[in-house]
Amino acid sequence: MQIGFIGLGVMGRPMALHLLKAGHSLAVYARRPEAAVPLAAAGATLASSPSELAARSDVVMTNVTATADVEEVLLGADGVIHGARPGTIVIDFSTISPQSTRRIAAALAARNIPMLDAPVSGGPVGAETATLVIMVGGDADVLATAKPLLDCLGRQIVHMGSHGTGQIAKACNQLALLVNAEGTAEALALGVRYGLDAGKVREALMGGIAASRVLEVFGDRMAKRDFKPGMAARLYDKDLGFVLELAREAGLELPAAAIVRARLDRLVAEGKSTQDLAALIELVERGSSG
Amino acid sequence: MQIGFIGLGVMGRPMALHLLKAGHSLAVYARRPEAAVPLAAAGATLASSPSELAARSDVVMTNVTATADVEEVLLGADGVIHGARPGTIVIDFSTISPQSTRRIAAALAARNIPMLDAPVSGGPVGAETATLVIMVGGDADVLATAKPLLDCLGRQIVHMGSHGTGQIAKACNQLALLVNAEGTAEALALGVRYGLDAGKVREALMGGIAASRVLEVFGDRMAKRDFKPGMAARLYDKDLGFVLELAREAGLELPAAAIVRARLDRLVAEGKSTQDLAALIELVERGSSG
Repeated sequence: MQIGFIGLGVMGRPMALHLLKAGHSLAVYARRPEAAVPLAAAGATLASSPSELAARSDVVMTNVTATADVEEVLLGADGVIHGARPGTIVIDFSTISPQSTRRIAAALAARNIPMLDAPVSGGPVGAETATLVIMVGGDADVLATAKPLLDCLGRQIVHMGSHGTGQIAKACNQLALLVNAEGTAEALALGVRYGLDAGKVREALMGGIAASRVLEVFGDRMAKRDFKPGMAARLYDKDLGFVLELAREAGLELPAAAIVRARLDRLVAEGKSTQDLAALIELVERGSSG
Repeated sequence: MQIGFIGLGVMGRPMALHLLKAGHSLAVYARRPEAAVPLAAAGATLASSPSELAARSDVVMTNVTATADVEEVLLGADGVIHGARPGTIVIDFSTISPQSTRRIAAALAARNIPMLDAPVSGGPVGAETATLVIMVGGDADVLATAKPLLDCLGRQIVHMGSHGTGQIAKACNQLALLVNAEGTAEALALGVRYGLDAGKVREALMGGIAASRVLEVFGDRMAKRDFKPGMAARLYDKDLGFVLELAREAGLELPAAAIVRARLDRLVAEGKSTQDLAALIELVERGSSG
């Protein structure tokens, strides 16, 4: 199958390489041409625009940062919509606004271009090892066609429902993990304040019902005071924006999510937007809740 | 070794049975005599008071509900302190106030009775299967003597530090798990509000960095609307009281913990104190944050 891939960052690059390795014919488009170099070296061809890329693809995949980026590469002046044949499938792996996703899917559907929203969980390591969880919104038959491609990228493909529900599930994912990060930070900060070793507290908690991947990964960084850029706070801040927008529209109060939002806003305001989420523990210790 | 055990409830009974099975000579004291029946059937002898129990024990273990219960059985008129020989080790598995634990340990130390605070995590299943995590505060040499007994009860024994630090670690444990439960409830409630299947959201989230034992266990109950008595909300409410008392004394603000406290207080106020923690999702959906 001829695949086009747009967005060759820390997530997109390893994903595109997995598709090449699986034997698919791949064309790529990168706004920063140097990002395409490792793909070209591995056998991908280069396209001059999203539109041109789409013209020669059966499936177009996007993995960019913001809602506006997805809108530009799909619907913009040189966008996929102007090159894609009817029936070409668009799969967007980006984490963007669920509401915008529905609008984009509708615009594509008007040209008979089916779209799947397919945000992922698992981070750079999950992308490298093809063990991502992929949360999919869109038509079941489109997913059935795309499934063999997604299986090259992740170990768990979950169909959530209609357009936008993949993004909503991703919002739920970010909400659960971020509130858990706040709880982890509060728990370790309390222990440290009473003279306990944060690493030992983490070890004890990992043995019981408080065990979590967040405690394992971010709890370890909190205990070691390792806040160097990893899962950057500003990206989580963006994601929590989607969470709270959804909550506001639905009239649902999410007080713990609001607390974490204030924490992340504070990190951004202090110029620490690229610090790892583990930096939350420092805010708890300082009493900076917003 | 001759062991005395006080408190034969849902946690204490299986723990006492494990000690018997390991070949230890066991005497028990139960305020409700019927609680001692299964132990007597398994070979334990009965004592008429904590004091009398202590007089014939090398190690006295307690597993009761509240701080006042521990104070009564250890320091009360018929308490362990009046029967124990110098050197008899007291091990308290109850989850109680860290500050009170230190006072109790000091009162016992004045009679040369060493104490370990050893609250556990793992719940009834962990007690039945001897897979508890035991968080220990007290002297290292006392723990070294008691370790073979604790190994009969748990799979992970973590020495946190001096008297009370076991209880502080347990407070950290409850804090982390309860905030995670709030985040899980908020995440599933958001998905449900947007028409997603809570079970599918849980399944997707379990595949990535949002995975946790809380999501696995309580998330499942939340998805199934199974709030029947399990891990009763009132017990967590008690534990969060210790958390917030510690935080207040240390001048540490724990906003997410405070949110969960308000939720649990609300459950208790609504006469739902024996409902499972999974009932949090209903409060999120109703917007009852306190």
